[in-house]
This record gives sequence, structure tokens and C-alpha cells, in this order.
Amino acid sequence: MVEISDLGIRYARAVAVHRIIVPLGVELGPEGSLLRVEGDEAHHAVRVKRLEVGDAVELLDGRGGRARALIKSIAKHGKHGWSVELAIAKIAREDRARVMVEVYAAAAKGERLEEMVDALSQLGADLFHPLLTERSIVDPREGKLERLRRTALESMKQCGRAWPLEIGEPVKLAEVMSRASSPRVLLCAADATGGEIPKIGDSIERVLLLVGPEGGWSPAELNLFGSSSAALVRCAGNTLRVETAAVAVTTLVVDRLAAGRRR
Amino acid sequence: MVEISDLGIRYARAVAVHRIIVPLGVELGPEGSLLRVEGDEAHHAVRVKRLEVGDAVELLDGRGGRARALIKSIAKHGKHGWSVELAIAKIAREDRARVMVEVYAAAAKGERLEEMVDALSQLGADLFHPLLTERSIVDPREGKLERLRRTALESMKQCGRAWPLEIGEPVKLAEVMSRASSPRVLLCAADATGGEIPKIGDSIERVLLLVGPEGGWSPAELNLFGSSSAALVRCAGNTLRVETAAVAVTTLVVDRLAAGRRR
Repeated sequence: MVEISDLGIRYARAVAVHRIIVPLGVELGPEGSLLRVEGDEAHHAVRVKRLEVGDAVELLDGRGGRARALIKSIAKHGKHGWSVELAIAKIAREDRARVMVEVYAAAAKGERLEEMVDALSQLGADLFHPLLTERSIVDPREGKLERLRRTALESMKQCGRAWPLEIGEPVKLAEVMSRASSPRVLLCAADATGGEIPKIGDSIERVLLLVGPEGGWSPAELNLFGSSSAALVRCAGNTLRVETAAVAVTTLVVDRLAAGRRR
Repeated sequence: MVEISDLGIRYARAVAVHRIIVPLGVELGPEGSLLRVEGDEAHHAVRVKRLEVGDAVELLDGRGGRARALIKSIAKHGKHGWSVELAIAKIAREDRARVMVEVYAAAAKGERLEEMVDALSQLGADLFHPLLTERSIVDPREGKLERLRRTALESMKQCGRAWPLEIGEPVKLAEVMSRASSPRVLLCAADATGGEIPKIGDSIERVLLLVGPEGGWSPAELNLFGSSSAALVRCAGNTLRVETAAVAVTTLVVDRLAAGRRR
């Protein structure tokens, strides 16, 4: 059995405490109360992770709620169903990020898109939209978007964020830019000819990262950036795949924001 | 037909000029000379990319040599073989990076390792070694290392670097650290409790990035860092997969080095 007092160290050291996502609308708490989890999450905890009565878990509600809990009882329902009863020990609430990091990237083909969403989620991006550009090849359909939302929830469970990476609808470049013309928005477009990520001023509430397709931005799109407040930012010297470029610019912005918070 | 004079723009804009890797030991040049390419690279150019006489390509020799060339003739040999004759138009040589970026990361399972090597290559890392730590699960065998070397060459072709990412043998953490105790080496270990990437002084010749397994560093390993000059560096607030952590710290270091070069 893991003592609750060990958990602080276990979190910091990234040794996996098993996490359970509670269904939408279920309230975490109050502390000391019991919560019953069934379905896939219960099955995963009991049959895949082989957790037992007394084991500690972390509960996430996907809306900033995070609770430490102990497994109080495990019961079997019918042929495949499991039910796990949890004693809630400690609840914390996290606000959304003060500066939202939004990634608008041309969709890569096949599984690369899911892998990119997983990585963006781990790195702490807040929102992802597939970006439709002149040279985009892929325009993901609803079924694919649904898979990306599942990937984002799975990733939340794995990496321990309190809010999932939100997956938005495919959106055209011109529309993103027209919706984002505010002094509180910092607009960055990844491009081999660009420079460093600009300073993120205190008034900024959203950083929008635009990542084009592997065919590059069209001349018209580059003109659109030139006639707006968009900053062209470089991520590395070589020709990058979309997903590597998206991950690289997100890393740089998240690092910049973290460095700003510590000062 | 693409004029050679267009190539500058095409490179900068990342629109793919097809690249051909010449076999080990083949000299590029002199300018004006002809070079014959056969085997897989010829097959790929003719049958997959459907290039034709007059098309421009870029040749890479994997040792810093880069040439622009035009396809002069295409011939068929036997049942499946192709031969492409190239007229070399312009040769450039690139030195290795002044500061070598070396990534020592615990090997991820399955295809994730190949994908990580591909991303590290695109981002400009110079060397990758699988890192053996107390909690490492995977110790890649020779067959896997051979696949990683092929991945690195494929990636060189795709992203246009002049030297491939080098793939080294699996190595133990203590050995890396004992080999790297020099004032010309900056040693950084990724850890959730770490800080920013330290300033990379002018005397630094190698930056070694250490990335532990998903189980985290052991207490003994953390002590080893504490009693050495290693800096603990953070890459994001969440629990990262090995490959995301490796890509993130590489991105931050490469960006830092690029920013230093522009000053």
C-alpha cells in the first residue's frame, strides 16, 4: 500500500501513479466522500493496471479538478464489468493557463496527427485546430477529430494535466487571422526564414502558433502575414515535418512562458 | 524543367527538391562532371518520384558535401534496375557543427524510437546514443541500431542536412558522465525539478543532453548529477514521454545555439 504522504515525491519524480478520468459531470468530493467508477476506466484500473484495494490513484475531472484517492473496494458486475469504489483524500483545483497556447497546424497524414496531438498535450498546449491552407493536403473529418479528442484525453491521463488539450474544427488561415487581430493576441507563424519567438508581453492572453503544410506557405499567405502583426518564427535550420515544427514552436513558447512566470 | 536559378527559393521555402544520397566513398564533383547513381536511390528517383531528364536534384554525400545537379539521362538495367546520370552544377561543403549536440536518451519501446530519431535528426542533433539507466526497460540490439541508422539517413534526405545524425551504441549513464567531465562539455539532464537550459559559453564544444526513462532517474542517478557539473533542466510542467522530453530539450538547446550565432 502506498501512503498518501509518499505521493508528493511520486508526482514530482514522474513515477506513474495511476490516473482515472471521472465521467463528464461527476463532481470530485468533498474530501472524505466516496466515489464509484465503472466502465472502461474501472476495467483499465483493475484488469490492465492490476490495482488493488488500498492502492492510491489520482482522479482528474478534465475541468481543473484533481483528487488523490485510495481504492476502498473492487466489485465485479456481470461478465466484464468492474466497479471501483474510491475514498477521496484530497482535492485541488487548477485554473486554466493565464496565457492560452493555441496551435493551428496543417494536418499531417495518418497516425502522425495523433502522435502530434499527444506530444502537444504533453507539452502543455491548450487548443489545437487543424489548419486549412492553400497547400494543405489533409482536411480531417469528424471521425478523425473524434479520435484526436480521445487521444487528448488518453494523454491527459498519461501526463497528468488538469485540463485536456482541446481539439477544434478545421479552420482556414484567413479566418484564424481575422479572429485574432487583438493586442492581447500574439500571432506567430513557423517559417524557415523567421527569427526568434518574440517577447511575450504581460498583456498577452493568447499565443497563436501557425504551422503550414510541408509544401510551405503560399506567396499569398506570406503576404497575409506581412500585412498583419504576425511574427515569422524559425524552429530549426532544416526542412521540418509539420508535426516536428508544431512540437518545436510549442516547446519554445511554453518554455518562454515558464521562464516569464519564474521572474 | 526547373532552372538551377530557382533552387535558392525552393530550398528556402522548403518545397521539396528531390534529394539523392550518393554511396559511401563516391566523390561529388568537380562541377561540370557527370555522376552515375544506381540501386535504391535511382529506383526511388525514377519510379517513386517519377523524375525525368532535365529535372533538378540535390546530392548529399553524408560528409558535408552538397551538390545541385540536373538529370542528364535515365536508363533501365535488366528487370528492375535503373541508372540515373547526373550533371553536377554546383558543389558546396559544410563543416560539422561548431558545437555538437549529443542526445543520450533511454530507448522508448517499438516505433517510438525510430520516430524520435527522425525528429532529432530534423531538429539538428548530431549524435544519439540509447542510454542505459537503472530503470531503463529497452536495450536496443544491433538490428534495431541498424534500423535507426537507416532512419537517420532517410531523415537526412528528407530534411536536407549535410551530415546525418550519428547513431551510437547503447551506453551506461556512469560511462557517459565519466567520459564527459571537461570544461568544454555542458551536461544537462532532463528532470521535472530542473530549471532553464544554462547559458552555453563560447568555450563549449559539446552539449550532452541526458533523458531518463519514464520511470524517472533513480536516487543514485540524481546523486550522481548532484556531485557533478550536470545541470537539471525542465522541459514542461507535465509528465513527458521519453521521446517528447528528448525532442523538447533538443529544441531548446538548438534554439539557444542559433540565437547565440546571430549575435
